Amino acid sequence: MPSNQDEIRNGLSGEERLIERYFRPLATAPNAFGLGDDAAALTPPAGCDLVLTTDGVIAGVHFLPEDPPQGIARKALRMNLSDLAAKGATPAGFLLSIALPTNTQESWIAAFAEGLGQDIGHYDCPLLGGDTDHTPGPLSISITAFGTVPHGGMVRRATAKLGDIIAVTGTIGDAALGVLLHRDTDLAKRWRLSSAAKDHLEERYLLPQPRNALADALRAHASAAMDVSDGLAGDLAKLCRASGLAAEVDVDAVPLSDAARVVLSADAKLIDRILTGGDDYEIVLTVPAAKFGALRAAAGNAGVPLAEIGQVMSGQGVRFLREGKVLSFARPSYSHF
Amino acid sequence: MPSNQDEIRNGLSGEERLIERYFRPLATAPNAFGLGDDAAALTPPAGCDLVLTTDGVIAGVHFLPEDPPQGIARKALRMNLSDLAAKGATPAGFLLSIALPTNTQESWIAAFAEGLGQDIGHYDCPLLGGDTDHTPGPLSISITAFGTVPHGGMVRRATAKLGDIIAVTGTIGDAALGVLLHRDTDLAKRWRLSSAAKDHLEERYLLPQPRNALADALRAHASAAMDVSDGLAGDLAKLCRASGLAAEVDVDAVPLSDAARVVLSADAKLIDRILTGGDDYEIVLTVPAAKFGALRAAAGNAGVPLAEIGQVMSGQGVRFLREGKVLSFARPSYSHF
Repeated sequence: MPSNQDEIRNGLSGEERLIERYFRPLATAPNAFGLGDDAAALTPPAGCDLVLTTDGVIAGVHFLPEDPPQGIARKALRMNLSDLAAKGATPAGFLLSIALPTNTQESWIAAFAEGLGQDIGHYDCPLLGGDTDHTPGPLSISITAFGTVPHGGMVRRATAKLGDIIAVTGTIGDAALGVLLHRDTDLAKRWRLSSAAKDHLEERYLLPQPRNALADALRAHASAAMDVSDGLAGDLAKLCRASGLAAEVDVDAVPLSDAARVVLSADAKLIDRILTGGDDYEIVLTVPAAKFGALRAAAGNAGVPLAEIGQVMSGQGVRFLREGKVLSFARPSYSHF
Repeated sequence: MPSNQDEIRNGLSGEERLIERYFRPLATAPNAFGLGDDAAALTPPAGCDLVLTTDGVIAGVHFLPEDPPQGIARKALRMNLSDLAAKGATPAGFLLSIALPTNTQESWIAAFAEGLGQDIGHYDCPLLGGDTDHTPGPLSISITAFGTVPHGGMVRRATAKLGDIIAVTGTIGDAALGVLLHRDTDLAKRWRLSSAAKDHLEERYLLPQPRNALADALRAHASAAMDVSDGLAGDLAKLCRASGLAAEVDVDAVPLSDAARVVLSADAKLIDRILTGGDDYEIVLTVPAAKFGALRAAAGNAGVPLAEIGQVMSGQGVRFLREGKVLSFARPSYSHF
């Protein structure tokens, strides 16, 4: 057993040891100071604003405790990257706060750090610092991410204009169906899904694909944007409310994956879940009609599918129309409350 | 009961309602966008770096669930302000992530927001954004704070120099005694503390007084600094380790409050607790001998007491000396692990 003085000299606390072993190797940016300081420093490029966002996940609320730790790490980071994407920002780094139950296995932390490291590289978004604690509660992860935009260039929610086209990236509702499949393996049979289709939907829930490739095009062309994380219906309603406007959406124009179409053919009522479920991590945006062609071309160049789904109107509220009728929802927006 | 469409049009989710009522009134900075966007924007002054830090508290770990919510809010913010102070940074704003148990009373949230509002004003550190969730676990608060320094000006841990004077602000150990008093009301009698002395120590635990007034002076004169949050012994050991140097501290020179001296006279063994307990939120710093006078004068002008306690040496480890003997500690650094 080391003497007390040895402990002061060479010993690290449990927290320091975890950080040294698993997180310091990820913090290679010089301004992270190897996680060995009270704070990180960030030098924004001249003439740029920083975009700041924070989002977190809690075991049992946002993910299942037995989900693979690599994926939990990647999803937590990607949720924040999706916010940066929707604001037209280039990722500049992030801080990680993690509260670990006292019985957390070190192998869990190793796998979590491995997943995080993959996405740090993939998105060029360095780990700059963080905070580690033990908790008597569920494992909780909170990430604060930073991006840069030219001064005044952040794409806002509140700036949609009357008559703008409404568009969304990718496909909607896959993750909302994927989480049902993830929690109930019998559903795939009931929905007559192929194994590939089931995997597609589940993967869309487990590992979002944030649209960071679209950030520059959004800044150049979109009038307003936000990421779709709490369901298209509720999130578009937030954007319209912030802009003091209304919207009409053509339900048949909402882009769906082939797998989601199979599910709908088995149970048509799930259109509700598709339009109001969470975890899409796509972008809903508004764009003046005159700029839509340029935006779609830029999105195509960036490899991001973009579909026109509706129009910004005067008034309040969002109406989802199908065959001339307004669709009503059981619960318009996903909320963990 | 409203129709589904009314809900989409006018309804807010539980999370949105809480944010609108209690947190939006605090987010008056224009770049917070009234908490109504995915992200905040921050425009650093030209030629400045941003200093980024994150720290959080969990009920039952860092505070008692029955502690006043105002104080919990203020302490959580001040813990982060203390990190900015130690880095020589001027506060520029913060993001708040809060995970609320489902049975949280709205009155608790109102009081929490009230406390937060007081310190937002007092420290001119605006609320820029955040994230609210419900949790099956204990109430948890994570704050990420931002400060500004002239480019390259962040005061680091790793830059102490051989022969530098070591100094600390304020008094050490009050909060470590205060938390004992807070948890066991009989102790005040056993230690023969006056009611005023008991209140002083407890208040030092409940409401840190971060040394933001010293930030400019630190940047001008200190060679290295960090805030003392996990106990003087452990935190100075971290600073020395980061700098690749050792230190000797004169225990009798460590500044103590009158209340702490009364406690020590009742139980001399508590010097261990005083030097290794957490929650001081003072600053330990190193400064070249030639600059110490200027730093002390600047600290005096800022109303911050500063005491010389030791010297940076070559080698490894921190030795606390009393009457020529090395003091040994039961647990050199406070850790929640």
